[in-house]
Amino acid sequence: MEKALAYAGTHFDDFVAQLQDLLRIPSISTDPDYRDEVRRAAGWLADHLETIGMAHTEVLDTAGHPVVYAEHVVDPARPTVLVYGHYDVQPPDPLALWTSPPFEPVIRDGVIYARGACDDKGQLFMHLKAAEAYLATGEGPPVNLKFLLEGEEESGSEHLPGFIEAHHERLAADIVLISDTDLFGPGIPSITYGLRGLAYLEVTLTGPNRDLHSGMYGGAVENPINALCRLIAGLHDADHRVTIPGFYDNVVPLTEEERATFRALPFDEQAWAKEVGLPATKTEKGYSVLEAISARPTLDVNGIWGGYTGKGAKTVLPAQAHAKISMRLVPDQRPEEIAEKARAYFEANCPPTMKLSFRYLHGGPGVLVDTHSPAMQAAARALKEVFGRDPFFIRSGGSIPVVSVFKKRLGLDSVLMGFGLTSDAIHSPNEHFGLDRFRQGIESIIRFQTHYARTR
Amino acid sequence: MEKALAYAGTHFDDFVAQLQDLLRIPSISTDPDYRDEVRRAAGWLADHLETIGMAHTEVLDTAGHPVVYAEHVVDPARPTVLVYGHYDVQPPDPLALWTSPPFEPVIRDGVIYARGACDDKGQLFMHLKAAEAYLATGEGPPVNLKFLLEGEEESGSEHLPGFIEAHHERLAADIVLISDTDLFGPGIPSITYGLRGLAYLEVTLTGPNRDLHSGMYGGAVENPINALCRLIAGLHDADHRVTIPGFYDNVVPLTEEERATFRALPFDEQAWAKEVGLPATKTEKGYSVLEAISARPTLDVNGIWGGYTGKGAKTVLPAQAHAKISMRLVPDQRPEEIAEKARAYFEANCPPTMKLSFRYLHGGPGVLVDTHSPAMQAAARALKEVFGRDPFFIRSGGSIPVVSVFKKRLGLDSVLMGFGLTSDAIHSPNEHFGLDRFRQGIESIIRFQTHYARTR
Repeated sequence: MEKALAYAGTHFDDFVAQLQDLLRIPSISTDPDYRDEVRRAAGWLADHLETIGMAHTEVLDTAGHPVVYAEHVVDPARPTVLVYGHYDVQPPDPLALWTSPPFEPVIRDGVIYARGACDDKGQLFMHLKAAEAYLATGEGPPVNLKFLLEGEEESGSEHLPGFIEAHHERLAADIVLISDTDLFGPGIPSITYGLRGLAYLEVTLTGPNRDLHSGMYGGAVENPINALCRLIAGLHDADHRVTIPGFYDNVVPLTEEERATFRALPFDEQAWAKEVGLPATKTEKGYSVLEAISARPTLDVNGIWGGYTGKGAKTVLPAQAHAKISMRLVPDQRPEEIAEKARAYFEANCPPTMKLSFRYLHGGPGVLVDTHSPAMQAAARALKEVFGRDPFFIRSGGSIPVVSVFKKRLGLDSVLMGFGLTSDAIHSPNEHFGLDRFRQGIESIIRFQTHYARTR
Repeated sequence: MEKALAYAGTHFDDFVAQLQDLLRIPSISTDPDYRDEVRRAAGWLADHLETIGMAHTEVLDTAGHPVVYAEHVVDPARPTVLVYGHYDVQPPDPLALWTSPPFEPVIRDGVIYARGACDDKGQLFMHLKAAEAYLATGEGPPVNLKFLLEGEEESGSEHLPGFIEAHHERLAADIVLISDTDLFGPGIPSITYGLRGLAYLEVTLTGPNRDLHSGMYGGAVENPINALCRLIAGLHDADHRVTIPGFYDNVVPLTEEERATFRALPFDEQAWAKEVGLPATKTEKGYSVLEAISARPTLDVNGIWGGYTGKGAKTVLPAQAHAKISMRLVPDQRPEEIAEKARAYFEANCPPTMKLSFRYLHGGPGVLVDTHSPAMQAAARALKEVFGRDPFFIRSGGSIPVVSVFKKRLGLDSVLMGFGLTSDAIHSPNEHFGLDRFRQGIESIIRFQTHYARTR
């Protein structure tokens, strides 16, 4: 490990220059005009993986953009780490707001600016460099390594689940390691061990068989918008808890250890609310803001529409009203079951004047990884050595669907050891990544491999 | 009167032919391409008013389409009737659904088909023919007659209030007579004595300063859509009464006489609900469907929007939610006062997590005309003689803004004696008007003039 760390230290400038080469490729997966560029990035990565000495590398086609796969098995008896990352990037628009062109990476004050600098080229490249550090110094990596690098993450990873299903044998591993998340704050090492799931619904209420004149009919025809508002209003109680019967049945309660961690995290609720422009926060009774946004289930209307929405006044009594509603779930809530409970709520409360149409659009379960597992403890130790302080185990309120896919298709937990910051402007103009974090990431991954190998 | 009635009888075929000439002019006021046609219709009417012998006729320009004005003062001591009508028509789209072209009037089975056949060329032309019947037979009309025929009703009567204000002296009269409403049903004579008013609002709730990711923020940021739904849900109680404090303060209660009339009207609630496709009606507790849609104040959301409303799923926690809300008012609710009460409701109930924007867009008061007035009784007598049965005094749930304008600017009540049917397809393809009703209308107007003259 010491040799690998030394190699990484002496070659850091080369690593940065190589990352800049990768960042120059505009691998925008959502835009068909950049299809060849996405493939070029895949080819670049495959070449690079070969160059650093991975035993086997190939570019595998999918119905969408290709997957780069590489492996280096040192000893079947050792643990195997499957590294996941994505080499595609978000579109750079609006271009006018970039200080320097998005695909001409520049370094200013120790920070590299380019689309993909953090999300996820910069972070996935740390894993290549950690592997190189072991391979170049002759000792070889202490674990078996597999790389699965996709090119469709920013456009929905449409073909990834099928790919993982089709290649589940060669993807066999002991743990997935992903660097595509954030530090809790600058200099604060953190490992994400929990993600929320999702259940997404669309509800339509239909009253009369056509839009009516509110003067001629108003008073005896129940208005679908008013009725839908009543149904939606009834979804929360005064404590801001979700009222759908059975909604909380399978929720794994926060442990005292988890709540202590939430309290220990350096988080300023007032500053957070101010940044979002909120006069006041609103949480489920009994839970802090951090707990509520990351570890408790929620319900939000994501969209609502009905009747006349143009300028001025139109006195329509509309035939229909629609809403898109999603629930963020936590373990062990099951998305399909929660959707059925929501359906039951709407059916039970739909007034006799209305017809209800209810659709469950999609969903996925929440994820909780045991923080005491060997891989998590190895990651914690690595981060502590690099940052000089114990990392926080944190939960994220969002979803990373691929983590559920790895669990479901391969039976694998994921270690989410990311080095981004919420201020890195991923998906926005002037995306950037601090070279200090690029260096810390490489060191942390090198250390993780050694510590994890020792757990076997 | 008998001579006039006889004249109308013998010249009926000529009247129908003349109406067809008027209907051939595509006087579509909303479409700038038909500007000249609107003016041509005004000129045609002015020529016709001169031809039948009105003492003074002119076409008066406005900033929009012209007003046709005519008067015939027989004796300043006699009562003066101001006839209001509109010679502009709705666009005929969709053209493909017309059986015969909209501006080539044809008669099939005693019914004349054309755009404007009922609304309002056919109905206003009855007044010209009644006047002609008196003028042609030498006896002259029994009342002083003034005609105010506008060309902008179908595009909002934008310039009419200003016109009435500017010409209030020459428009001085004792009563306004309007034929632009419906019979309660075929063969059921009726006089509309009540109209509802309106107060139209737009409400916006703003939570965070930008759209947020529902995963990263959901749970501690109150959702503006959910909050707006709660506010809207709170606008009605379990009895479907409006909860805005003071909303019913000035409502003139229905009299026992009025309620008896409502009960006597031939109205089938089940058939009505079926026609609109409703599984069930919903009214304010204690009121029948007819009472609720025409004589009680109501509140309806006319439009609602916020967040993502496209196809599929987007997990946005939106910054804003919007609603357009209107209230139908009855005498003596004052629109501005009701709007202020609504504002107070929203301000008092807006959660501390939200900023409220409240706009009162426009409104107008409801109208009630004393059914025992000389003009109303004269109209009732005329209709009884023509239809062979007592007319019903009915209330309409809609608004006819010009009626309020006549009341406010000229101090005049309006007699709404219309001969349309809801099945006449005004504003739709194949608009039509039964020649029997055209004849009944002319006779009723002739009789009204004589009966009304005798009240002085």
